[in-house]
Amino acid sequence: MPVHDSLVPARVAPTPEADLDRPEAGEQAGLMARLGRLWERNPLPPAADIEALFTARLTDVRANKLARAWCAAYHEGDAKRQRALLSGLVQGHGAQKQPAESAVRLFKRFNALPDGLRFLVSLRADMLRWRKQVAGLQALDKELEALLSAWFDVGLLTLRPLTWDSPASLLEKLIIYEAVHEIRSWDDLKHRVAADRRCYAYFHPQMPDVPLIFVEVAFAPQMADNVQVLLDMAAPAQDLAKARWAIFYSISNTQAGLRGISFGNFLLKRVIESLVDELPQLKSYATLSPIPGFADWLAKLPAAEVEAIVRDTKKVRAGAPDGARWVERLRRAAQGKPSEVVQRAGFKLAAHYLQEMKNDMPLDPVARFHLGNGARIERLNWAADLSAKGLSQSCGMMVNYAYVLADLDDNLARLQDGKPVISRSIARVG
Amino acid sequence: MPVHDSLVPARVAPTPEADLDRPEAGEQAGLMARLGRLWERNPLPPAADIEALFTARLTDVRANKLARAWCAAYHEGDAKRQRALLSGLVQGHGAQKQPAESAVRLFKRFNALPDGLRFLVSLRADMLRWRKQVAGLQALDKELEALLSAWFDVGLLTLRPLTWDSPASLLEKLIIYEAVHEIRSWDDLKHRVAADRRCYAYFHPQMPDVPLIFVEVAFAPQMADNVQVLLDMAAPAQDLAKARWAIFYSISNTQAGLRGISFGNFLLKRVIESLVDELPQLKSYATLSPIPGFADWLAKLPAAEVEAIVRDTKKVRAGAPDGARWVERLRRAAQGKPSEVVQRAGFKLAAHYLQEMKNDMPLDPVARFHLGNGARIERLNWAADLSAKGLSQSCGMMVNYAYVLADLDDNLARLQDGKPVISRSIARVG
Amino acid sequence: MPVHDSLVPARVAPTPEADLDRPEAGEQAGLMARLGRLWERNPLPPAADIEALFTARLTDVRANKLARAWCAAYHEGDAKRQRALLSGLVQGHGAQKQPAESAVRLFKRFNALPDGLRFLVSLRADMLRWRKQVAGLQALDKELEALLSAWFDVGLLTLRPLTWDSPASLLEKLIIYEAVHEIRSWDDLKHRVAADRRCYAYFHPQMPDVPLIFVEVAFAPQMADNVQVLLDMAAPAQDLAKARWAIFYSISNTQAGLRGISFGNFLLKRVIESLVDELPQLKSYATLSPIPGFADWLAKLPAAEVEAIVRDTKKVRAGAPDGARWVERLRRAAQGKPSEVVQRAGFKLAAHYLQEMKNDMPLDPVARFHLGNGARIERLNWAADLSAKGLSQSCGMMVNYAYVLADLDDNLARLQDGKPVISRSIARVG
Amino acid sequence: MPVHDSLVPARVAPTPEADLDRPEAGEQAGLMARLGRLWERNPLPPAADIEALFTARLTDVRANKLARAWCAAYHEGDAKRQRALLSGLVQGHGAQKQPAESAVRLFKRFNALPDGLRFLVSLRADMLRWRKQVAGLQALDKELEALLSAWFDVGLLTLRPLTWDSPASLLEKLIIYEAVHEIRSWDDLKHRVAADRRCYAYFHPQMPDVPLIFVEVAFAPQMADNVQVLLDMAAPAQDLAKARWAIFYSISNTQAGLRGISFGNFLLKRVIESLVDELPQLKSYATLSPIPGFADWLAKLPAAEVEAIVRDTKKVRAGAPDGARWVERLRRAAQGKPSEVVQRAGFKLAAHYLQEMKNDMPLDPVARFHLGNGARIERLNWAADLSAKGLSQSCGMMVNYAYVLADLDDNLARLQDGKPVISRSIARVG
Repeated sequence: MPVHDSLVPARVAPTPEADLDRPEAGEQAGLMARLGRLWERNPLPPAADIEALFTARLTDVRANKLARAWCAAYHEGDAKRQRALLSGLVQGHGAQKQPAESAVRLFKRFNALPDGLRFLVSLRADMLRWRKQVAGLQALDKELEALLSAWFDVGLLTLRPLTWDSPASLLEKLIIYEAVHEIRSWDDLKHRVAADRRCYAYFHPQMPDVPLIFVEVAFAPQMADNVQVLLDMAAPAQDLAKARWAIFYSISNTQAGLRGISFGNFLLKRVIESLVDELPQLKSYATLSPIPGFADWLAKLPAAEVEAIVRDTKKVRAGAPDGARWVERLRRAAQGKPSEVVQRAGFKLAAHYLQEMKNDMPLDPVARFHLGNGARIERLNWAADLSAKGLSQSCGMMVNYAYVLADLDDNLARLQDGKPVISRSIARVG
Repeated sequence: MPVHDSLVPARVAPTPEADLDRPEAGEQAGLMARLGRLWERNPLPPAADIEALFTARLTDVRANKLARAWCAAYHEGDAKRQRALLSGLVQGHGAQKQPAESAVRLFKRFNALPDGLRFLVSLRADMLRWRKQVAGLQALDKELEALLSAWFDVGLLTLRPLTWDSPASLLEKLIIYEAVHEIRSWDDLKHRVAADRRCYAYFHPQMPDVPLIFVEVAFAPQMADNVQVLLDMAAPAQDLAKARWAIFYSISNTQAGLRGISFGNFLLKRVIESLVDELPQLKSYATLSPIPGFADWLAKLPAAEVEAIVRDTKKVRAGAPDGARWVERLRRAAQGKPSEVVQRAGFKLAAHYLQEMKNDMPLDPVARFHLGNGARIERLNWAADLSAKGLSQSCGMMVNYAYVLADLDDNLARLQDGKPVISRSIARVG
Repeated sequence: MPVHDSLVPARVAPTPEADLDRPEAGEQAGLMARLGRLWERNPLPPAADIEALFTARLTDVRANKLARAWCAAYHEGDAKRQRALLSGLVQGHGAQKQPAESAVRLFKRFNALPDGLRFLVSLRADMLRWRKQVAGLQALDKELEALLSAWFDVGLLTLRPLTWDSPASLLEKLIIYEAVHEIRSWDDLKHRVAADRRCYAYFHPQMPDVPLIFVEVAFAPQMADNVQVLLDMAAPAQDLAKARWAIFYSISNTQAGLRGISFGNFLLKRVIESLVDELPQLKSYATLSPIPGFADWLAKLPAAEVEAIVRDTKKVRAGAPDGARWVERLRRAAQGKPSEVVQRAGFKLAAHYLQEMKNDMPLDPVARFHLGNGARIERLNWAADLSAKGLSQSCGMMVNYAYVLADLDDNLARLQDGKPVISRSIARVG
Repeated sequence: MPVHDSLVPARVAPTPEADLDRPEAGEQAGLMARLGRLWERNPLPPAADIEALFTARLTDVRANKLARAWCAAYHEGDAKRQRALLSGLVQGHGAQKQPAESAVRLFKRFNALPDGLRFLVSLRADMLRWRKQVAGLQALDKELEALLSAWFDVGLLTLRPLTWDSPASLLEKLIIYEAVHEIRSWDDLKHRVAADRRCYAYFHPQMPDVPLIFVEVAFAPQMADNVQVLLDMAAPAQDLAKARWAIFYSISNTQAGLRGISFGNFLLKRVIESLVDELPQLKSYATLSPIPGFADWLAKLPAAEVEAIVRDTKKVRAGAPDGARWVERLRRAAQGKPSEVVQRAGFKLAAHYLQEMKNDMPLDPVARFHLGNGARIERLNWAADLSAKGLSQSCGMMVNYAYVLADLDDNLARLQDGKPVISRSIARVG
């Protein structure tokens, strides 16, 4: 449910999706209902029971029964009770002599329950959400993150295509989790998984109904420069025989509980490998991406800095408004009659922004993801996303990141030297 | 491939199984053959390449290509070259500043390759086999074991029944890996997975064609006391409606490369849960197990100690031979006309042996496994396995370990206090 | 695509569904495109080729190549060309000495092509649609119907449940083919296959993606009396533990090309068998059905006949309007404040209509289907379907047909004696 | 179970396979056991019940219950009772006014039962077996054959490969049904479905565990000339990249109950289509077949006719023994040191035999099958099958029939003119 391509700090607990974040809502309910409940609804488990969760042998029957009961109580509890249960866990953890080993034992015990892994992912989403409300959660989370990091190692995941023949319940999750370009209807969804498109997701074998991260791919004879065109349901189907470019136009993470666990960086490389096999006519691979932090960054830029960037652009110097005014100007221009001067200045500003670094990494979250994969900044596109969100975040501009397999390592090395790799056209602009 | 129920230190590298231990022989061969080879067959990878395996980012294209090449070279190499490649790896590892993290990175890189997990399991089997020949392998193995321990966490495994409708290539592995009572033919195999039997195995989702550990189950109106009866292919099918006892008569591990990784302890509990659902008419669960260390132990027992054990058995005192002579006597008696006195003495000796502890654990490897699961020693059976192996190891005796779910934790607690739990009948005997 | 529960003469060729009726649109297109084309687009196959289709041995390579070419030409042709191709076939057929055997050979040849059965079903839909435009089609259709009748024998079909986990492309077909109560959206669809509902369809193994006929089932503590309640997406989920009645509230045929082929009569019996196994708490089975011919029938009823029917209903006699006026009156009453007198008269009229016979079968098409299955007319429900269609066809009334397995044969026997079986409550009314 | 490639009149009821011919032995037993039994074990169903089977509506509940009971009684009966039940059916059939329609109704009723099709195939095997013992069975069989012919139309069957990954229970059927070159062990079986071989079978979707007919295929750089080489389990695996010929070396029918129903003729063409896709390096397709009727034919040939055939073969004329002596001579020669003269005479005799016609079809059953498919007689091979059967039937010779897709129709046309097509090499010989 957290957003991804935009890689903004994962959305924490948007209400309607909160339930979906716990897909056990459906399946696990049955299981849980069948569990005897050891504690009444109100009282919390006694300290001795919590102690057993942390200390008993992994195969102990009683401790595992307690674990089931704890999970059932958690599953059925409201948010208040869930926080109380987590609090109890944190206290139990704090009382352990060997906190790290004890926590491992706790989570392995949970993982051994039916649908345990699913439960843990959901539990961690709550832990992240409540880490400020429940003191001490962070220490526990650190242990859980380490375990999940091993259990979701990319070597254990499988990449699977999603098509219109996939289960409706699975495709529905694309609607729910799509975080970049909203899927507005089932017709829109059908268009995204149509025969002239591809959609791939990573799955964990223990959660085969949950796409962990997914990417939507379109094909075109040239590098795409406008996302509305791609999203247009009325557009005729592409002739795949003529496709030369694969365009990754949307990437979304789905599990808040897997934040910080890095399988995303493998996704595009795996997808490219798969496409190379299936569609050998493809020659190039690129994204069509938003620049989500651009408007916010520009709005805060003092007039002098703006001027330093756009200095070379003819006729722009005069007036020298500050960044906030530029944001307005760019948005207007994107929607109106194109002014070559403004467009050129916009490109200069965006190109500058995309190369801004912070803590040795690109400032823009999407740039951080793709440049961190070894892609390079290929081209800026004017009036490429005129949706409300596109105008608001990126002043309507979009950027292509190109994935050239042979260059990824070198590009990444240069990024780590502080210099994101840009194409010649960007260089000319910026 | 290591033996299990008998839990002797895993058989290291029996020749015919050595190849089977690397099931890639089949599938991965294709993959590997397709890989370009970076190094000629003879030269080993240069140090810089090994360095990259340990240090490059996990997603680096070149390092992953090197990893493929290393695996391909290893896969195609003969034993000598394989040891040389492992040696190179050990040296590379030794040169790392952060050896633990570097090793993790190396193995995660391998795991991310197609069929990588399978390869690592096979690689570890070699590492264990050659740990004395290749200096420094143990440190590397320690890291690999930790990773495999997470990746084969029981929460990631699935328990699946094997039946006569399972793929022949899968069932064939039962013949190869059965370590307790040899499967002599496909007719024998068919009998073991017949409709009146059950066979369950744990599988890892990335290796769906490899049973990691499997158990064979028969059903009977009473607790079984003779394994030849169970193995008799000519015996009529059991009427499951009349079954009251589930008898676990064979448990085998299959992967030398997973030695020390403990999912085996969950197996019987999971199988019992499954049987409770499917066959509610069952009332009790027990094994019919060999006593593999008995004869060896007894053969070394001085006469005085033997006498102390059998003292109360009428008429036995006279002559007071030593253990070695007793072994012969028991074997003869098992095959000949039963002598009540000898049988009683045999039971006393076996009951004593089964309760022997070493390093706070039962001395006998099978007892260690089942008592370590919380089972109790239920009954000794005379002339219960007259096969060459049965006579040789156990003087023809077998033991039932009873699994009473409600008692497992307590039994185990008492074992940890040094006192294995035994039934009354055993108590009377010993 | 033809309608079913309403069993009106199968809808012939509604434009938008015409394409869906030939699902090869997708899959077969590829195949067809790969076929070499023997004839240019315009010219029709020469008579010798047509002759070969009818006379060559079934295994002849050339004749089968011609058959592929004919199907490809048909598949790609527009309606005009398709009719010309059919015309050519009819002429070829007419020229045969043994027309029946020749036609069988022709269709078996088509059936042996990839996706041949699917093509034949689609072809027959066209033949039915154009039987008046293309002289002689009827004779050919008779042969095809006989073959399809064998190939779609109920013993070759499988009954499968459809759920929200079914492929989206399959569920979409419910939206397209639902003929009784329109599925208005994907949310509506999800509600129809929700966990507290069931939906079953018959499938042919060669067309696993095509539900041939499907029924939607709801559950309730009592016999349902209002379809809007059942269709209300906002209604809370039923507690299946409390269900006593299974309500079949929609049945739709999907394939115009299978008209006259009778697997529908087995459907409800099979579904009941399946429900008996899955939900033993169910006690009774009934439909909630429209009375599609009622308003049309009543509108033509002279005043005298109306009066004869409603005579006993107090206060109704006066005025004695004709049937057309009664239709208006009933519709108004259904939507307005209920008048007991009008309602009683409405019930009398509907009960009378449901028992009307024509050619020894019930006049109403839905009654014909359910009474022909051995169900009985159980209860009339006032203001049970206030949709435009419900008001228009049935003046808002609906009827329950009860399926009592033990009575079906006898009920059917009595129907064949000319007396549909009705419940006491209906008897009192009518 | 009947033999096929050898196409001798299908073996009727070989004892050990009789049970396997009714695979319900396993699955259907459960079903049948669950059925209530309407008649005691000894009494036969009353005439009224039989009458209902033939006359009631197909959907009648009671008649279908009777049908289940009849099938259960039949299934559980011994051979004597089964014949009595069939007798009762025949009498019921004889009493019908419209015997054809009534029989159709009877068998459709059976077909609609669970596993009904499987039961009918097994029933027909019995009917063929007992057609002489039970008067009137033939008329009933004629109706059943017509229905099965529609239900097993090749368009309803699927061609599937069998590999070592197929279910053991399925592969076991190859051992049971292989009728040409006995499968001697599971090792032999594994060799026949190894990665360098192919095995294909036709399946009916309602009987997915029963291969109806199967063919074993080997690959070679040249046309194979010796079957022992192909059957040698110790031979190294073929390099498929170097394969140019696909050799069909064994074809077996499995279902006696499907005798006379012709899907076999499609088998090789479909397999060739599949191989063309999978292994484009293949250039040619041929069988390596026995000549099963040769020795019997030759043994009865008078000396004069023998002489007429071998006349041109130098040095053979002298002595002019009769055919029976020639059979001995050829067998000795096949096993001993090759004599060019005898070999040439043997080829002449075999070539002559293969072209012998009877009732306008080739006399030899295997020739009848392959020439009837349009193949041509390509080459004779000396000492190509020295097994007991090979020597006994074919004096150790084998023949290649070549399948050249483009020529099949013409070859068949010439066969129908009475002239089997032979290659030049055969022409020179014979």
